[in-house]
Amino acid sequence: MTIKISIDCMGGDHGPSVTIPAAISFLKQEPEAELVLVGIEEVLRAELKKHHADSNPRLSVLAASEVVAMDDPVEVALRRKKDSSMRVAIDAVKDGRAHACVSAGNTGALMAVSRYVLKTLANVDRPAICTMMPNEKGTPTYMLDLGANVDCEPHHLHQFAIMGSVLFSAMEGVKRPTIGLLNVGTEEIKGTELVKATASLLRADHERGLLNFYGYVEGNDIFKGTTNVVVCDGFVGNVTLKAVEGVAHFFKSAFKENLLSMLGGLLAYGSLKKLNPKSYNGASLLGLKGLVFKSHGGADAFSFEWAIRRAFDAAKYNVQEQLSALIAELMPHDSEVPGSTIKQGG
Amino acid sequence: MTIKISIDCMGGDHGPSVTIPAAISFLKQEPEAELVLVGIEEVLRAELKKHHADSNPRLSVLAASEVVAMDDPVEVALRRKKDSSMRVAIDAVKDGRAHACVSAGNTGALMAVSRYVLKTLANVDRPAICTMMPNEKGTPTYMLDLGANVDCEPHHLHQFAIMGSVLFSAMEGVKRPTIGLLNVGTEEIKGTELVKATASLLRADHERGLLNFYGYVEGNDIFKGTTNVVVCDGFVGNVTLKAVEGVAHFFKSAFKENLLSMLGGLLAYGSLKKLNPKSYNGASLLGLKGLVFKSHGGADAFSFEWAIRRAFDAAKYNVQEQLSALIAELMPHDSEVPGSTIKQGG
Repeated sequence: MTIKISIDCMGGDHGPSVTIPAAISFLKQEPEAELVLVGIEEVLRAELKKHHADSNPRLSVLAASEVVAMDDPVEVALRRKKDSSMRVAIDAVKDGRAHACVSAGNTGALMAVSRYVLKTLANVDRPAICTMMPNEKGTPTYMLDLGANVDCEPHHLHQFAIMGSVLFSAMEGVKRPTIGLLNVGTEEIKGTELVKATASLLRADHERGLLNFYGYVEGNDIFKGTTNVVVCDGFVGNVTLKAVEGVAHFFKSAFKENLLSMLGGLLAYGSLKKLNPKSYNGASLLGLKGLVFKSHGGADAFSFEWAIRRAFDAAKYNVQEQLSALIAELMPHDSEVPGSTIKQGG
Repeated sequence: MTIKISIDCMGGDHGPSVTIPAAISFLKQEPEAELVLVGIEEVLRAELKKHHADSNPRLSVLAASEVVAMDDPVEVALRRKKDSSMRVAIDAVKDGRAHACVSAGNTGALMAVSRYVLKTLANVDRPAICTMMPNEKGTPTYMLDLGANVDCEPHHLHQFAIMGSVLFSAMEGVKRPTIGLLNVGTEEIKGTELVKATASLLRADHERGLLNFYGYVEGNDIFKGTTNVVVCDGFVGNVTLKAVEGVAHFFKSAFKENLLSMLGGLLAYGSLKKLNPKSYNGASLLGLKGLVFKSHGGADAFSFEWAIRRAFDAAKYNVQEQLSALIAELMPHDSEVPGSTIKQGG
């Protein structure tokens, strides 16, 4: 079966000079793939020609006349640039011309446009952003939400847990991934009211055999790999991710790129050669009626290719169908009952 | 003037084998200091003898018959071990036998016992834990709260900002330290309701010339050194700190200790030799009627000595008096008006 991925080729810090070589390289690795390259037509054709790829039958160009800048406010992306490469790439998913979409464009705009075009899945109140972090076990830790939702209720975190579980299961081939709830300690009495109420919902699911809830985890557990999935609200997730990236930036003179590159540098020194850090590019926008993946804005071609790979795998493993089915099964009522914390007692 | 510091010599992972050599070394550096060593008397005397320091007139031993273990619940430390080295060291501050106290014991117990013995400062609702992080500018970033308060109201964060500002000013000799409020973005519309309401309080103080409020900062700004002080609730602070430490632990095989040691290792590779990472030991318990400093539990003697130095400097620079005075000046009403967010409009 052929899997089609639409690529916002204009997004990110480097645009077509990164996205086009990544697309060409990906196709060489993946015979089942077809890529729809979205952007300013003449720019894309010129870049393709440069790489002698202008007649590749598995690469097509879809014209878009505008580009969402990295610092464009969400409103501009949403209301004023209706023919942006980002928008057209997402439209392709909605129209069935692509199975999934990839963009390195600005996160806020990508989430807003995706939500507007694709709409939210039934039973999901709010989409979330899920990223992968490397851990000591050499497996990825999936972490969500990374900033789409700053003020959360327990039923939102509950939905994030379910979506994270489904994504991990489908992408990593693990039947019942372990779910950790980020907290300031592991004892039951620890934490905010939000965290405690969420834990009750997750424990109830665990008891019914629906979710594999491990319990509370702490900040360091993300990198220990204590659980497959770590759930938190978007405020905590965003601050944590940026703080970790900040430590990396602190050492930019020694290790010149982002966190993952730093990890790469360190891995080269140390004995932990279990993973290739650049392969951790590609965050999922989860909970939409369609698959959208976000690449790091500063990604190079090698790293952007991994974001395409993530989108391709998600389409190949039917993540969308599994998400819809399992969300409906696991939480048929949550979106109808905002006060879903009433389930706590059960 | 002689400054007396009481030291909980039994606390931390290593106890007297770390705390006693640190104390002896500190005295050699600091002629104005006297140290009160608190713990099991025969153990301390034996350790002193080992280091030929049993007749140093500036070292005295204060006997305590119990020890708070690193995993003792708060209740045990508070109610069942009333003659613990931790408790007796804090009692010494209350009784005026010491100007400040240092412990490497468990944080929850140290906060609870300090609060019980010393009480909270007038106008302060909740004490906070303030730590120093290294940054690219080669200066420290003070960050609070680090976990004492997980569910916060705007007036709590407001008080943390004031306490952080006073501490930074006194300890670092900076007149009007810049205050950043941790958020998911720097635009005014970003953030949780808590963060937005806190920003209103801080902006009002800024306009009245009372606080130097910079505005919102993000996770990476901690390590950039964008502001002198970074304010957040204890949940976010705790998770962030542990995540950053978790990245360090991830590389333990290459860099065998905690975050700061890792930073040390990296600094040795890179060109950023602006600071000595182990000197970043010693978190302040702020907002009590007395000075209490918390060392990292795993600190070695060199690092523990820095925590003693922090306590000594805080006493020398009259941090306690400055805190009391400025808190009373800056927020005369906050503790009386829990809904202090009514100031927002002002």
